[in-house]
Amino acid sequence: MDCNIVIVGGGPAGVITALTAKSVYPEKSVCIIKEIADGVIPCSIPYMIYTLADPAQSILGNKPLEDAGVKIIVDKAESLDTAASVLTLASSRTIDYERLVIATGSSPVVPPIPGVELPGVFSITKSLSAISLLREKARAAKRVVILGGGFIGAEFADELTRNPDAEVHIVEILPRLLSQDFDDEFCDAATAELAGTGVQVHTGRRAISIGGEDKVKRVELDDGTSLQADIVIIGVGGRPNAELAAKAGLTVTEKGSIWVDSYMRTTVKSVFAVGDCALKRDFFTRKEAPVWLASTATSEARIAGTNLYGIRVLRQIQGTVSAFSTKIGGLCLASAGMTRRMCEEEGFRIVTGEAMAPDRHPGFLPGPSPMKVKLIFANRSGALLGGQVSGGPSVGELINVISIGIQMQLNVRQLDMMQIATHPLLTSAPTVHPLINAAHNALAKLRLQK
Amino acid sequence: MDCNIVIVGGGPAGVITALTAKSVYPEKSVCIIKEIADGVIPCSIPYMIYTLADPAQSILGNKPLEDAGVKIIVDKAESLDTAASVLTLASSRTIDYERLVIATGSSPVVPPIPGVELPGVFSITKSLSAISLLREKARAAKRVVILGGGFIGAEFADELTRNPDAEVHIVEILPRLLSQDFDDEFCDAATAELAGTGVQVHTGRRAISIGGEDKVKRVELDDGTSLQADIVIIGVGGRPNAELAAKAGLTVTEKGSIWVDSYMRTTVKSVFAVGDCALKRDFFTRKEAPVWLASTATSEARIAGTNLYGIRVLRQIQGTVSAFSTKIGGLCLASAGMTRRMCEEEGFRIVTGEAMAPDRHPGFLPGPSPMKVKLIFANRSGALLGGQVSGGPSVGELINVISIGIQMQLNVRQLDMMQIATHPLLTSAPTVHPLINAAHNALAKLRLQK
Repeated sequence: MDCNIVIVGGGPAGVITALTAKSVYPEKSVCIIKEIADGVIPCSIPYMIYTLADPAQSILGNKPLEDAGVKIIVDKAESLDTAASVLTLASSRTIDYERLVIATGSSPVVPPIPGVELPGVFSITKSLSAISLLREKARAAKRVVILGGGFIGAEFADELTRNPDAEVHIVEILPRLLSQDFDDEFCDAATAELAGTGVQVHTGRRAISIGGEDKVKRVELDDGTSLQADIVIIGVGGRPNAELAAKAGLTVTEKGSIWVDSYMRTTVKSVFAVGDCALKRDFFTRKEAPVWLASTATSEARIAGTNLYGIRVLRQIQGTVSAFSTKIGGLCLASAGMTRRMCEEEGFRIVTGEAMAPDRHPGFLPGPSPMKVKLIFANRSGALLGGQVSGGPSVGELINVISIGIQMQLNVRQLDMMQIATHPLLTSAPTVHPLINAAHNALAKLRLQK
Repeated sequence: MDCNIVIVGGGPAGVITALTAKSVYPEKSVCIIKEIADGVIPCSIPYMIYTLADPAQSILGNKPLEDAGVKIIVDKAESLDTAASVLTLASSRTIDYERLVIATGSSPVVPPIPGVELPGVFSITKSLSAISLLREKARAAKRVVILGGGFIGAEFADELTRNPDAEVHIVEILPRLLSQDFDDEFCDAATAELAGTGVQVHTGRRAISIGGEDKVKRVELDDGTSLQADIVIIGVGGRPNAELAAKAGLTVTEKGSIWVDSYMRTTVKSVFAVGDCALKRDFFTRKEAPVWLASTATSEARIAGTNLYGIRVLRQIQGTVSAFSTKIGGLCLASAGMTRRMCEEEGFRIVTGEAMAPDRHPGFLPGPSPMKVKLIFANRSGALLGGQVSGGPSVGELINVISIGIQMQLNVRQLDMMQIATHPLLTSAPTVHPLINAAHNALAKLRLQK
């Protein structure tokens, strides 16, 4: 068959590329190759265990694609001939394309621990059938061990405490949970929330083996601890799915991502790559950055989908800002850009500003949470490098003020005088809003330096 | 007495000027002249009737000022001699200053309606004693008529429906409530919320007289309707308190504001003005704009407080963006920048973009609200001119993404590809976030124009 624009991959990156392409180039035919027929909203997976009444509520539906006139093919892309512009599927079907977009995502890394292949050990696969099985086993389990204390591990641990009879352990090699995205004080606050809901946190510990006969029974840690386990959930990271691209001769980076330029074009002119499988360059250093978030992927998808037949819209914002939010226990946390730890590793000279206030004014109004903001600025230019926030649910959008501020190169002096909206029932007071006061606090430190 | 920096006015503008001045110029003495000893958080006033258990919880405390070493004087500033740099108080006390900041705020306008002086007719005065009296009378009233359907009127109406026995009327001259800050569809949604809680809304109607003998009994409208009333609350606007400045010979605008430059300096070098009493220039037209919000006032206060003894920090963002949020019934609404109506009045050629999605993903997760975003862009440059949002509580911070986007001169193409954070429990999905999709919708319309 023939199709003008072929997208390989049915996750958020693939779907948004297809929808964008169809809206920018309505005269072109667009098809999407989905390897997983029952794909789910990736970030919602932890909440499919208890919070969602029915895991099928999380399915990534085909309706938006069908409504837009995108053809959906459930099959696996087997090989790609970029010279002939032909994609071959596992069913041996071939498709001639004008433009091809690879959106094959990432796969979970399975650490090479003895026993990791035992039944009852789960990696996170983004299909309804896989998660439904995990749901069944997780709900029945009395003892759960989670390997990996990033946000997947922390969110699963939090969700599993919905079962008061379950004993939940989380094992993290680094000294703190969530330390890829947060500085110590925010990691510690999240850890305290988890501990408060009964999660047993083992940081600075490595799992050295998983024991059991015909199914998992226990996890042995490097300090000699043996944790009983009915199931083990692995959330230790991922790797880009770049096989199709590599086999086709496209350039793949040392870290395994498909090389792309600013417009998501691979080394072959008619082939694009977006999402977890595609190279991301850090906003501040332009180093390769493994930021595998659906929100990052969809932003790339809009860039690719718009520019498939020539650069129509310039990418004025270069580089990837890791921006994400989560909720652990009763605490919402969010981060965008660089943390202090990253700045130290990369040699950025910084000044930080911190502020805290209730997210209502006065704080006696219903539903207040203390909202804490930490901002990181470049020492000389005052450029906003990053921010971390904790508090109530409004941190989910407050972090987007910071994310967009970073992308627009906001500086500390501008932010200090920025005009914001406030309301007694919805935000902190204008006199003490921690976003503004954190900038003010950083400015005060800068003045003392001089 | 002598004081280096004298601030006249104890509202948010005065307090933040004092705190900023003390932090930037720690070696200077700072005092603040408060006419009202028991001032309250202005925006919280409607919620002092029922929502706050004790109205004293809303008092604007002196502790931050005292902790910073700001001297507090409860007195009225009577006259100002700018040549001699002397302020005279009502107590006849005089203060020699180096810098004076006028932060005298605004007063409610009382419309010249017969009977407006009757007991039981209330304007909103920002003191605890005045609001405590209003609280007592409002809680006892069975029939309340509110004159003015801006946000003060709408918030009071909403609050007063906490008493299921009270009959609440709101009378607005314009065809819609809240039409200064919102386009028709958002005004209508807010009105439907109010009507749903039992408020009787009379738009396109004018009160022509207030009747009663020794206290208010009824309000007569221009269409012949007579509304029974135990109390009347007036919220029809305000006027700047510029008497002190005018008497001292400072320039006052035709609309009655104290003229200031970009650094809040009046026509006399050593005298500044901030907050409701000071001239504001609209961000897009530089026309005088009556934006009397505490958040605007505090932003001006930071500019003045920083630059009292020479311009230390440039005001890189020129002009005032009206940014505000509110909650009416179960609906949170927010607006920043220009509405379609304002653009039409001012002759701006625009394109709008709209999008709606649940503020959870999937929408089956707990606590979802439909979130609606409308964005307004300049037709040619694509510059973001304004935005309106309705939905759950997170609109309170989402509007700040839009407000800061306006101030940073974000355009529709940048916003379409902006990287944002999303989370199933806290925000819309990255694939359908209405902030991004509203930009996308506007871009699609722009493409069709060409």
